[in-house]
Amino acid sequence: MRFRHLISIEDLSRDDILHILRKAERFEDVARGLKKLKVLEGKILANLFFEPSTRTRMSFETAMKRLGGEVINMTAQEASSIAKGETLADTVRVISKYVDVIVIRHPLEGSARFASEHSEVPVINAGDGAGQHPTQTLLDLYTIMKECGRIEGLKIALMGDLKYSRTVHSLIKALNMFNNEIYLISPEGLRLPEEFLEEVKAEEVNLNDVIEEIDVLYVTRIQKERFPDEEEYRKVAGSYRITAKTLERAKDNLIVMHPLPRVDEIDVDVDKTKHAKYFDQAFYGVPVRMAILHEVLI
Amino acid sequence: MRFRHLISIEDLSRDDILHILRKAERFEDVARGLKKLKVLEGKILANLFFEPSTRTRMSFETAMKRLGGEVINMTAQEASSIAKGETLADTVRVISKYVDVIVIRHPLEGSARFASEHSEVPVINAGDGAGQHPTQTLLDLYTIMKECGRIEGLKIALMGDLKYSRTVHSLIKALNMFNNEIYLISPEGLRLPEEFLEEVKAEEVNLNDVIEEIDVLYVTRIQKERFPDEEEYRKVAGSYRITAKTLERAKDNLIVMHPLPRVDEIDVDVDKTKHAKYFDQAFYGVPVRMAILHEVLI
Amino acid sequence: MRFRHLISIEDLSRDDILHILRKAERFEDVARGLKKLKVLEGKILANLFFEPSTRTRMSFETAMKRLGGEVINMTAQEASSIAKGETLADTVRVISKYVDVIVIRHPLEGSARFASEHSEVPVINAGDGAGQHPTQTLLDLYTIMKECGRIEGLKIALMGDLKYSRTVHSLIKALNMFNNEIYLISPEGLRLPEEFLEEVKAEEVNLNDVIEEIDVLYVTRIQKERFPDEEEYRKVAGSYRITAKTLERAKDNLIVMHPLPRVDEIDVDVDKTKHAKYFDQAFYGVPVRMAILHEVLI
Repeated sequence: MRFRHLISIEDLSRDDILHILRKAERFEDVARGLKKLKVLEGKILANLFFEPSTRTRMSFETAMKRLGGEVINMTAQEASSIAKGETLADTVRVISKYVDVIVIRHPLEGSARFASEHSEVPVINAGDGAGQHPTQTLLDLYTIMKECGRIEGLKIALMGDLKYSRTVHSLIKALNMFNNEIYLISPEGLRLPEEFLEEVKAEEVNLNDVIEEIDVLYVTRIQKERFPDEEEYRKVAGSYRITAKTLERAKDNLIVMHPLPRVDEIDVDVDKTKHAKYFDQAFYGVPVRMAILHEVLI
Repeated sequence: MRFRHLISIEDLSRDDILHILRKAERFEDVARGLKKLKVLEGKILANLFFEPSTRTRMSFETAMKRLGGEVINMTAQEASSIAKGETLADTVRVISKYVDVIVIRHPLEGSARFASEHSEVPVINAGDGAGQHPTQTLLDLYTIMKECGRIEGLKIALMGDLKYSRTVHSLIKALNMFNNEIYLISPEGLRLPEEFLEEVKAEEVNLNDVIEEIDVLYVTRIQKERFPDEEEYRKVAGSYRITAKTLERAKDNLIVMHPLPRVDEIDVDVDKTKHAKYFDQAFYGVPVRMAILHEVLI
Repeated sequence: MRFRHLISIEDLSRDDILHILRKAERFEDVARGLKKLKVLEGKILANLFFEPSTRTRMSFETAMKRLGGEVINMTAQEASSIAKGETLADTVRVISKYVDVIVIRHPLEGSARFASEHSEVPVINAGDGAGQHPTQTLLDLYTIMKECGRIEGLKIALMGDLKYSRTVHSLIKALNMFNNEIYLISPEGLRLPEEFLEEVKAEEVNLNDVIEEIDVLYVTRIQKERFPDEEEYRKVAGSYRITAKTLERAKDNLIVMHPLPRVDEIDVDVDKTKHAKYFDQAFYGVPVRMAILHEVLI
């Protein structure tokens, strides 16, 4: 076993990441329902979601069930009832006595690591507030690998809220391990924090200047809550919005990604272009999570 | 495959309906837990219920599991979180990447059809507001077939709210395809809308005048919200209420049906009579949904 | 089959209890995931929880799944929607048409018995208000059997709220069937009700006077709501609190139990002592519930 828990993408080496991506590839036919495999039969996963995240929860549930395993979900009402009556340590201690693996999502940074310290079984972090969401990063890398044929030597633009987006921060670190050229496209006030720029090589650009060269355009949501003024938000959001027209000068094989849900940042007219890969990206979460579950359980 | 999606009972031909009812009959022993069949092993159903409907959701879940399939439920909290953050089209696009069939219930008419247009897998309508609820109609027909021995040439009385009841509207159309004689028993103000009477042959009667002749008495709930005045509601509801006494002059093999939940429209003293078939009717939802799932998945 | 439904611990004979405990022991390796057994394959359990109880629900779900069975959960939203629209009798009548066994938790005393009278399948009481919670009592006995080697001739102290605690009342009755010496440690106002003292032999003591002799210390929560005054609560709760220091003079093999969740009544410094068995106790719920499900289903 390469790792017992999966809490942060930074716990993984370059080699660990490649190992998971290759394993995910082997599971892809099973994820698509084309082949049956019951390698996790008799194993039980507990989904402990202390805040809702439909896509992530359902994708873990699908991954587990496609491999023959079982899933127990904590309900929202149970989560809030627990939050009132018991420490997270006690909850995890007990539930780890029942099941074989715990997937946790929690609004507080650090809670997944904390949970892993009190669990008798592997813990997978499905997002802990401003903290980490390593399975998202792995499925992003897998999408790039499948759609671009490699995860090295690519020109990748990250666009939108680069300041607060957990998804972007983890992805930049991972992309950097694989020698990609990274472009940043963000409004003033939502730029990538300085500390990242010390670690990773990336430059701030205008989309128009790089659209003909880039292989990947990774779009994230700009959240209204970040702006003191609605008018200001609308102006910014409007100019960080992708349409089919935006992509006219793009390379044939440019792919557009988005962690979803999207609001307005990608126009629906992009959906029908050959560039749109955000729904496939959501699907790729299934084989990647199958690989991770297989890794910690077998 | 006779149909890819099941959105409206009107999408089905007379022959399609008979095909499903016969298939349901073959699954009945499995539905009763008397036989095991794993014909849907490895398949996954997603229940997307944007409003609660315990009976329908549980009956689909039972149907899928009795055939060896798996079920993923969206929680109420997830539904409301999605409703705020994403279009129905995007939700369906993503979830149809995970699973093999989607069952949707939604408060807005037309939403099931809309969902099917964005899904990569079959969509089954489990009720869309004032729209359709085709599996309810099929289980109603199945109940009549099993309890009366046929679904043709019967005298069938529909009683209660005939104006707003989606269940009644779909059932009338289906019964009409099979040459039944239809009687309508409803208070003024809750009569069957004119447009139906142009399509189907049915006459308004008093229960007392037909009780000795009818084979089926299908009762539906009269909802308080339909009346501007509580006093008026009570008067009407009181006179559209079935008791054991009401049925004294009925034929021996008259069956009483109800889509449930009932409130006061059928007295509990009817439960013990040989006429009461509304709980069996709920059970018959299982083999009928098994047949539908089998039809779209295999 | 020794019993069809499991509503109250008092429905079971001494012999029935021993039979379940022995059966649980045979399932323990399966509960730990060390062995696979699909003896309940094809069977479906419905969890009808009208109030949240994560531990109990998840433990039943684990038990059923470890034996190859399936589980259908009613959601909290469905529960409240049912509560508004339908009698419990009708709900149980319908759901017992779908599944093979019902586990019910309900805030009203007597509701589990009532449900069993309207069900076509076995009903297991998972707590009905001030009423019974028989599977908790059985797992408490099982914990004692496993950790003390026997359930007879022990010195057992029950501490905390002995007046209102349903858990304590059922446990005392069961322990009494097996000739144990029972000590009671409770604040004034939360003493064991008189009627129990007529049935069972037990004496009120101070913990300090018996700590060197007892084999089991069963701690329960003292609830703030029982006190008219917060200051009074704090004083009482503070003096009914176990720490590692409290246990210094205890026998080597004293076990400390707690039905969980705990708040402050057991300090976390006890967790690391050899005496702490409350998390194991939670685990033991799984084999015990497996035994009960097997008993009513096979």
